[in-house]
Amino acid sequence: MADKAQIQAAIKVQGEVVRKLKAEKANKEQIDEEVAKLLELKAQLGGDEGKHQFVLKTAKGTRDYNPKQMAIREKVFNTIVSCFKRHGAETIDTPVFELKETLTGKYGEDSKLIYDLKDQGGELLSLRYDLTVPFARYLAMNKITNIKRYHIAKVYRRDNPAMTRGRYREFYQCDFDIAGQYDPMIPDAECLKIVHEILSELELGDFRIKVNDRRILDGMFAVCGVPDEKFRTICSTVDKLDKMAWEDVKNEMVKDKGLSEEVADQIGNYVSMQGGMDLAERLLQDPKLSQSKQACAGLMDMKQLFSYLELFQVTDKVVFDLSLARGLDYYTGIIYEAVLMQTLPAPTPTSQEQNGAVGEDAGVSVGSVAGGGRYDGLVGMFDPKGKKVPCVGVSIGIERIFSIMEQKAEASAEKVRTTETQVLVASAQKNLLEERLRLTAELWNAGIKAEVMYKKNPKLLSQLQHCEETGIPLVAILGEQELKDGVVKLRTVATREEADVSRAELVNEIKKRTSES
Amino acid sequence: MADKAQIQAAIKVQGEVVRKLKAEKANKEQIDEEVAKLLELKAQLGGDEGKHQFVLKTAKGTRDYNPKQMAIREKVFNTIVSCFKRHGAETIDTPVFELKETLTGKYGEDSKLIYDLKDQGGELLSLRYDLTVPFARYLAMNKITNIKRYHIAKVYRRDNPAMTRGRYREFYQCDFDIAGQYDPMIPDAECLKIVHEILSELELGDFRIKVNDRRILDGMFAVCGVPDEKFRTICSTVDKLDKMAWEDVKNEMVKDKGLSEEVADQIGNYVSMQGGMDLAERLLQDPKLSQSKQACAGLMDMKQLFSYLELFQVTDKVVFDLSLARGLDYYTGIIYEAVLMQTLPAPTPTSQEQNGAVGEDAGVSVGSVAGGGRYDGLVGMFDPKGKKVPCVGVSIGIERIFSIMEQKAEASAEKVRTTETQVLVASAQKNLLEERLRLTAELWNAGIKAEVMYKKNPKLLSQLQHCEETGIPLVAILGEQELKDGVVKLRTVATREEADVSRAELVNEIKKRTSES
Repeated sequence: MADKAQIQAAIKVQGEVVRKLKAEKANKEQIDEEVAKLLELKAQLGGDEGKHQFVLKTAKGTRDYNPKQMAIREKVFNTIVSCFKRHGAETIDTPVFELKETLTGKYGEDSKLIYDLKDQGGELLSLRYDLTVPFARYLAMNKITNIKRYHIAKVYRRDNPAMTRGRYREFYQCDFDIAGQYDPMIPDAECLKIVHEILSELELGDFRIKVNDRRILDGMFAVCGVPDEKFRTICSTVDKLDKMAWEDVKNEMVKDKGLSEEVADQIGNYVSMQGGMDLAERLLQDPKLSQSKQACAGLMDMKQLFSYLELFQVTDKVVFDLSLARGLDYYTGIIYEAVLMQTLPAPTPTSQEQNGAVGEDAGVSVGSVAGGGRYDGLVGMFDPKGKKVPCVGVSIGIERIFSIMEQKAEASAEKVRTTETQVLVASAQKNLLEERLRLTAELWNAGIKAEVMYKKNPKLLSQLQHCEETGIPLVAILGEQELKDGVVKLRTVATREEADVSRAELVNEIKKRTSES
Repeated sequence: MADKAQIQAAIKVQGEVVRKLKAEKANKEQIDEEVAKLLELKAQLGGDEGKHQFVLKTAKGTRDYNPKQMAIREKVFNTIVSCFKRHGAETIDTPVFELKETLTGKYGEDSKLIYDLKDQGGELLSLRYDLTVPFARYLAMNKITNIKRYHIAKVYRRDNPAMTRGRYREFYQCDFDIAGQYDPMIPDAECLKIVHEILSELELGDFRIKVNDRRILDGMFAVCGVPDEKFRTICSTVDKLDKMAWEDVKNEMVKDKGLSEEVADQIGNYVSMQGGMDLAERLLQDPKLSQSKQACAGLMDMKQLFSYLELFQVTDKVVFDLSLARGLDYYTGIIYEAVLMQTLPAPTPTSQEQNGAVGEDAGVSVGSVAGGGRYDGLVGMFDPKGKKVPCVGVSIGIERIFSIMEQKAEASAEKVRTTETQVLVASAQKNLLEERLRLTAELWNAGIKAEVMYKKNPKLLSQLQHCEETGIPLVAILGEQELKDGVVKLRTVATREEADVSRAELVNEIKKRTSES
């Protein structure tokens, strides 16, 4: 524990930070975050004074979803799950934590981002970092050699959060994978078809799916004269081309990673190439690249892939891009990544950014929204005998998609409904609570989505207002006269039209009116 | 680290355990668990010998859900969510971990069951123990005074797992809560109506919903002469009445908790009472109990509750039961718990149980499948000014329900489908892969759930077998002749009937045939 004087000094500094941000009218999230830090410090001090100042926040890099966000999330998930089911996928679920050793040695440098659980006796556990490694563990553990499955769940990374840009420490992944020994490129092509379907259906604007192959990259490195042991690290550098200019990437290759200028320039020549099946054909004739068996195998498969993509009618969005590298170590064949062409409005600059350090992707494209590839070796890492199960899959990065959908919802005039209630059972008169409850239960029992206000004598106006606010389309109004006549006054909120409906006909009438909309 | 000799000794003992279980033909799960322990020990030893023996398992008390289990889970969730939506609920989501201090002081003794995350710098975090405390934190943080929400998510308890009986360390809760200042017992009655609807729709057999009120319990303790400071601990003892005989409960009250025999007997007299509105009326006349203002307030509300339950037509399953106490500290009014009347088949006795320590609920009722109550003080614990938001809610304990549904599915002749595929695109002839892929894409684009085998030339028999195994009802068969004629041979798997359908009519024909089933 820091001592009191230290904390008081820290509070003073943090107070300055908050004041400065407020003076600069920085964005709310940034201010809230710094205020939370201040409160946390004060709470530490408060403890000494016997008065606990509670910090009311979620953990760093996480957020609650409110009902409106959940309604949007549900819509996005429904689109994605429908697509996965249309392609005949089953689903599985795995625990949120795994034995620590299950995750060990799978993520390279990123292992430092894994959340560990405290050792409370028993096993050492970690929160899952992705859904791919648990999937491979599941296959090996259950000796499954054949499955097409999807898995939608949260994963955890102690990364530097950038919440306005949709980067969180707790976030959803929507994974679709095909495991099994099949003829080349057929399941791979289906994964790309799925990305195409989902991004089209979500109406996120124009997009491109970049494809490449690890074997083509490795062959390229080899013929350019990169030493074998530098393949993976040069691969990481190439991976930065979507965020850095070629000059900077080249600099890193030469100065940091010790390639000669000549080798770097040769790589530069290749990674600037983009095309389709034609490019694969041209590169098969390339006097240098065709020297590499690996590259040729990759290029032949790329041709095959494009022929299937033509049958699937998705080549309009797919680009064979030699600069695509992807970070993870476990890919063994084709890799791909989908990017949206639209740019997000630049987030309000934070104080740090105003001070010169501009966020690397501020105001530019929202970047990758899906990615994946073939990983034929991962399951074998879990099998006691090293038995391999070839896999190919794709992961939809849902948080950025949520951000875009939320912005679209904000901009749109249409209100997002957070409930599906079809009718409110209401009354203009007093002492009719019991009659309202009785009718509501009748409607529930008939499968109608109905609400009733939890007041003995609510005002009609407040009942109607509740409908306006939450988008309930119908009101079933009860009064002494209606009860006597065996009818209900059914009111359409939008038009204010009212009509008496016999009690026996009410359920059908509500169903009819709400199925139209 | 234990030394090598210790581990070797432990391996020997554990080896005996496994051999014994196998000899006794104990159930598979039990054996698997003990084998896993053995492998773990061997792995520790293996490490010393430079050879890593990987332990392929999920964390203790957790499990994977395979596709069949997921299909059942989806069905149960759909029933529950439909009910929540029928009652006009919105949904929210909160992070899987909270600041440790958010959970501190909310669960009494059970706090020791909370999973903490390792301190990796930054905040101290814990996995959520339930959904109620995060809900209260959410309300206070966002200053929400009015909401009807459901939340379905996993919670975490480092409890002693009993997986064959549906007790896990990671498990789902399905919570429905109503927050807001309303007229008494209306939202409370809706919560009970919801439990009634869900348990009826899931067809789990007969059930009872026990209700009581913390104020009645406290009033009863007061008039029986229990000292104030012992209310909560005696309440915990009463809570054991569903698992222990009265004599044992009395013993605990007298010997462990220091009540006099006479006081205990008076409590015993009350807690044996069960009834409905009549019992509430009778107790309001009880010369002793009616001395307690608190008890009278609870009894008046109980009468009110039963009058609403009558309107909702659910009194057949609801019992006012003075022995219901519930463990959690935060309840302030009505409490309830639903129990199934059917008994599960006794699980195969484990070795420990054979050695005398019989599991406390082996072979008896599956116990509580839903529970909840009113907690008017919890939100105030998070509000800086202590502002209260009255809440009432219910939590559906889904794991036990899953266990029952799984057993029902096993026993039933009907096969659980794990995909929704409507049609397999197949061929009896060679070299038609491209035509199969083209047709499959046509069907996907028309919204048909379709599969195609990832082989260049699969045998017709293996394509038909795939349909039989996974329950795909239709096969669209392509051949040279069909392609020439512009038709597809559409085969019904169950009847083996085949008919040529024109390519233009295929989508409609598939929709027609699969909507019937």
